Amino acid sequence: MSQSANHGLPLVGIIMGSDSDLPVMREAAEILTEFGVPHEMTIVSAHRTPRRLYEYAESAVDRGLRVIVAGAGGAAHLPGMAAAITPLPVIGVPVKSACLSGEDSLLSIVQMPPGVPVATVAINGAKNAGILAVQILGASDPAMRERIVRYKRDLEAMVMEKVAKLEQTARES
Amino acid sequence: MSQSANHGLPLVGIIMGSDSDLPVMREAAEILTEFGVPHEMTIVSAHRTPRRLYEYAESAVDRGLRVIVAGAGGAAHLPGMAAAITPLPVIGVPVKSACLSGEDSLLSIVQMPPGVPVATVAINGAKNAGILAVQILGASDPAMRERIVRYKRDLEAMVMEKVAKLEQTARES
Amino acid sequence: MSQSANHGLPLVGIIMGSDSDLPVMREAAEILTEFGVPHEMTIVSAHRTPRRLYEYAESAVDRGLRVIVAGAGGAAHLPGMAAAITPLPVIGVPVKSACLSGEDSLLSIVQMPPGVPVATVAINGAKNAGILAVQILGASDPAMRERIVRYKRDLEAMVMEKVAKLEQTARES
Amino acid sequence: MSQSANHGLPLVGIIMGSDSDLPVMREAAEILTEFGVPHEMTIVSAHRTPRRLYEYAESAVDRGLRVIVAGAGGAAHLPGMAAAITPLPVIGVPVKSACLSGEDSLLSIVQMPPGVPVATVAINGAKNAGILAVQILGASDPAMRERIVRYKRDLEAMVMEKVAKLEQTARES
Amino acid sequence: MSQSANHGLPLVGIIMGSDSDLPVMREAAEILTEFGVPHEMTIVSAHRTPRRLYEYAESAVDRGLRVIVAGAGGAAHLPGMAAAITPLPVIGVPVKSACLSGEDSLLSIVQMPPGVPVATVAINGAKNAGILAVQILGASDPAMRERIVRYKRDLEAMVMEKVAKLEQTARES
Amino acid sequence: MSQSANHGLPLVGIIMGSDSDLPVMREAAEILTEFGVPHEMTIVSAHRTPRRLYEYAESAVDRGLRVIVAGAGGAAHLPGMAAAITPLPVIGVPVKSACLSGEDSLLSIVQMPPGVPVATVAINGAKNAGILAVQILGASDPAMRERIVRYKRDLEAMVMEKVAKLEQTARES
Amino acid sequence: MSQSANHGLPLVGIIMGSDSDLPVMREAAEILTEFGVPHEMTIVSAHRTPRRLYEYAESAVDRGLRVIVAGAGGAAHLPGMAAAITPLPVIGVPVKSACLSGEDSLLSIVQMPPGVPVATVAINGAKNAGILAVQILGASDPAMRERIVRYKRDLEAMVMEKVAKLEQTARES
Amino acid sequence: MSQSANHGLPLVGIIMGSDSDLPVMREAAEILTEFGVPHEMTIVSAHRTPRRLYEYAESAVDRGLRVIVAGAGGAAHLPGMAAAITPLPVIGVPVKSACLSGEDSLLSIVQMPPGVPVATVAINGAKNAGILAVQILGASDPAMRERIVRYKRDLEAMVMEKVAKLEQTARES
Repeated sequence: MSQSANHGLPLVGIIMGSDSDLPVMREAAEILTEFGVPHEMTIVSAHRTPRRLYEYAESAVDRGLRVIVAGAGGAAHLPGMAAAITPLPVIGVPVKSACLSGEDSLLSIVQMPPGVPVATVAINGAKNAGILAVQILGASDPAMRERIVRYKRDLEAMVMEKVAKLEQTARES
Repeated sequence: MSQSANHGLPLVGIIMGSDSDLPVMREAAEILTEFGVPHEMTIVSAHRTPRRLYEYAESAVDRGLRVIVAGAGGAAHLPGMAAAITPLPVIGVPVKSACLSGEDSLLSIVQMPPGVPVATVAINGAKNAGILAVQILGASDPAMRERIVRYKRDLEAMVMEKVAKLEQTARES
Repeated sequence: MSQSANHGLPLVGIIMGSDSDLPVMREAAEILTEFGVPHEMTIVSAHRTPRRLYEYAESAVDRGLRVIVAGAGGAAHLPGMAAAITPLPVIGVPVKSACLSGEDSLLSIVQMPPGVPVATVAINGAKNAGILAVQILGASDPAMRERIVRYKRDLEAMVMEKVAKLEQTARES
Repeated sequence: MSQSANHGLPLVGIIMGSDSDLPVMREAAEILTEFGVPHEMTIVSAHRTPRRLYEYAESAVDRGLRVIVAGAGGAAHLPGMAAAITPLPVIGVPVKSACLSGEDSLLSIVQMPPGVPVATVAINGAKNAGILAVQILGASDPAMRERIVRYKRDLEAMVMEKVAKLEQTARES
Repeated sequence: MSQSANHGLPLVGIIMGSDSDLPVMREAAEILTEFGVPHEMTIVSAHRTPRRLYEYAESAVDRGLRVIVAGAGGAAHLPGMAAAITPLPVIGVPVKSACLSGEDSLLSIVQMPPGVPVATVAINGAKNAGILAVQILGASDPAMRERIVRYKRDLEAMVMEKVAKLEQTARES
Repeated sequence: MSQSANHGLPLVGIIMGSDSDLPVMREAAEILTEFGVPHEMTIVSAHRTPRRLYEYAESAVDRGLRVIVAGAGGAAHLPGMAAAITPLPVIGVPVKSACLSGEDSLLSIVQMPPGVPVATVAINGAKNAGILAVQILGASDPAMRERIVRYKRDLEAMVMEKVAKLEQTARES
Repeated sequence: MSQSANHGLPLVGIIMGSDSDLPVMREAAEILTEFGVPHEMTIVSAHRTPRRLYEYAESAVDRGLRVIVAGAGGAAHLPGMAAAITPLPVIGVPVKSACLSGEDSLLSIVQMPPGVPVATVAINGAKNAGILAVQILGASDPAMRERIVRYKRDLEAMVMEKVAKLEQTARES
Repeated sequence: MSQSANHGLPLVGIIMGSDSDLPVMREAAEILTEFGVPHEMTIVSAHRTPRRLYEYAESAVDRGLRVIVAGAGGAAHLPGMAAAITPLPVIGVPVKSACLSGEDSLLSIVQMPPGVPVATVAINGAKNAGILAVQILGASDPAMRERIVRYKRDLEAMVMEKVAKLEQTARES
């Protein structure tokens, strides 16, 4: 599995149903790298490699993972099946599909039955999946939580820069 | 597993995600009984009994099954996951869900990725799933196909009876 | 009718409502060729050639067909009408439509009334329609079923190659 | 076929896919009776009596029909198939379905391909289908058109009565 | 108003809410020209020229029109408001909208209340609106109906040509 | 027209397409009474009384109205047509429809073309339509705006009471 | 904040959730400039600058604003949260989203609970939001209302020009 | 605030937009009680008590909360706004709405912009929200995770009991 540059055992496992999901799911890895969270990323297809899915999900705890981020499109079964097997929290990313714009992916992931939740984010929302993974780690780790606080401050600062730029443009016009 | 009254090894396996799907899925069993097709019916939850799902789907061929009928609602992963494991044709029945009227069930079942089809019928269409199973058996069995021909003739006759009744009512009014 | 390169009488009939469906429906023919299943492919429009539809569906059994694959878009009536006439299993392919992304095609095909099922696959899922046809033939033909088992193994292998490639890329970066 | 009390050959043929559509489709007959338009009403199932559908639609012109009103629910193929066969204008009534509230019926009826229109009215809009049939007859028949003008005047008067009643209630409160 | 090349008073009035609907609505005019039906085409905006809408719809009968074809997109009120005013049959064409693909246009046009029908065709189905107008005129005009019969035969022939071409291609490959 | 108990000329005109909308639209009148805003309420059907709609909307300014609240269901044209005629702000209330839960009403009202806005509130949101009318009057009337401030404070107080009650229940259990 | 060229304190505040909404929201500013209504435009993100949202909405009345126009996409909370805080009328513009075409934005904005309305316009309907703001100001300002009357006349004239052009083209062809 | 029977400071805060959400949201509290996780439950309305929302979300970390569960219906802004303010993970429960079956609630909660995720569960999925909260706590707490493992085992056992019962019934019939 591809491990993050951050040394140490991966805490977050990012899996996706197909390599065509990579351009979307990569954003989860990037934000984890930005937060300094060791992670791994690989392909696990619920429908084409069902046994691999079982092994991945069953061994997750023992391999030290604390959160799984799973992205899939269409009849997206990967996040829900991972959640069925592992006791870890699973974050689901509905990947935009060719025909139904990801509405099928979203409903396939979020509408889980009582007993087996998937923490679903927006369609193509892999970046948010990464942030949510950090928040989950931060629930019991004040240092990590502090990084989220700083991240929120940075987000705010970026908006304020755009505010300034918009006002500048307006003043000059 | 509950086996059909018809003696002989079951050819069709009917599975459902929850016993709350039983009122819908029972119709599949009834029509198979009507056609004299030996079958079995049980509960296999993709999310609550994932290992059981694997075992069921993996042993299906060896146990003599030729078709699997799988019903589920909401984020309905049972038909697709069964289809991922077994080489047998899998018929999916989207069960009407409490909130989204089965639209979530339908999309979760029908929108399978290339390589792993699920033969999807209408929402709550368990009866049609049973008929389709008979048609699949009949593809290589002229006697079975003949029963489908007779069934279609009976359907037609039933409609014609209603036509007669409607005309009778109209004439008398 | 265009017959497959595979010698012998066609076992699967692929029909579509319009030649504009050909780029989608061709995938069904290609996968059947890959599996060595003799098949034919032609245009049958439910709305522009309704008599041809009747003749095609009525003669299907006698001509030796065992499965019909029917693709159509919009108010897609071809699969359902074929299923109304023939006792053979009919697989429906909802073709993506210009305005509603195939949602109209999907509902027009899958929501069949009790008594007349259509085995519906994903929007534009012609490849899966072909695989499902092979699975249906394989229900009573162990050799054919074995080819499905091998096909699934190949799918898995292809995913594992992509896994390896992704890890390679990660190691090098 | 049930013919209207109005003597003379029926000008409008009302057909429906199932006797369960009768409570909805009856409104088309009632409004035609109100307008004094001879009509007939019967059951023609596209899926259970496909040959009857052909015969009905093919003989419609010769039997003197000028308009066909066809109601169906779910994968509603009756109006479109009738329109494929007859040169007469066909009015389609999407009947509200059990699971998808008639959205499937509506799309299956209205989204016809170029060349074969169906004049679609609202979900469960059988009354309007009857009025539209009268308007179609009235396109070339000033007396009939005059009845539509009077009908519109009556509709207006009925609204004005309700207006008066609402004001009365308000004044008294 | 732009009148058709066909001499004689227009029998069909084509109106649209905006000149941006012209590329779609032009197909209605073209098919009417093909059928030799005199027609006129102009812009009438329910929302920007409400008084013009009233005058157009109120004078339609006296000016000799027998059918109105009205196209509009988004909150498409033109067909329904025309139908509210004139006793003539009104055919509605839901024009594909920028954001919701014409689903808003379709529902705004088809879901008319009891008493005031609009004969709705498919999204962007202006060609079918023209054919339906011919069918309506043909309901009481055997010569016109005969042209529809011929048109249907031509449609069938065109499909059969494509069938031949597809078989040719297949034979050569 | 039914005028509010509040003396003085009505400032807000509440209109609805049918008396069946009264149970919903009455809430707009009640909240206006609560705010002491003189208003009138009547039935104006875009489709059954199109001339009345014109007269109502055209005379609205001269009769002293400042805001129009219009409710309608299905192909809901009343708010948009009123907005086409009057320069006053028009608030549209999509009334829940029998088949499509008000989705048709919502899209028919909100998706207005550039130039003619309708201020749309939630499905069945007549109470909010009334509050919005008060806010519009309050845009230039500090006393009225002050009443909105108090209303918001009351809303807050009501929530806090429920908070207290919930805590009470929890403490006792 | 960027203030309009029109001298005097801004009466309308235009806010948007992100600078990516600027191409859409700019149309609101342009139409206000056209109507000579002083306004300001800035970025306020409900999710990235929640405190700024509070301050903006809380100070709006005291800064002289009479109407707020708020645009946002996806889970669009800006208009509703502004409306929760200020007593001023808030106009919501659902911005078309990348995946769901603005259906998510529309529902997030329009479906407000009783007590807190948002005056919602069409998806991407920022121009109409600007016009509605003018209409709201015009509710109590006859001069402003007169400008709306003139604007409507201009709209009508523009349509009539296109009518003339279409007829010209038709005559020449 | 209502605190759980479990002694100790609450680790999970359950908030809802209205007391009408209580029958749904109570399930989150019940499952937390079952898992022995101290929690609190109260009403916080984004739209009626916006300041309370700020205070609640801002003080959450200092009060010892580690996860927030927020339920709301319609234009459901509570979960997203809480997530905008607190660095803690926020779980959103879309509550089924009166008109659109919770589709509006779901999209308003899940479609959050980059930077501010909400961990969304199924419509009315409060029980799963509670389980997800336990999983989040368990990410860094092996004892808690062990309880999830046991819970999954119990779920499986419950399904197996139903399997046995179904087989029993079948054997006896």
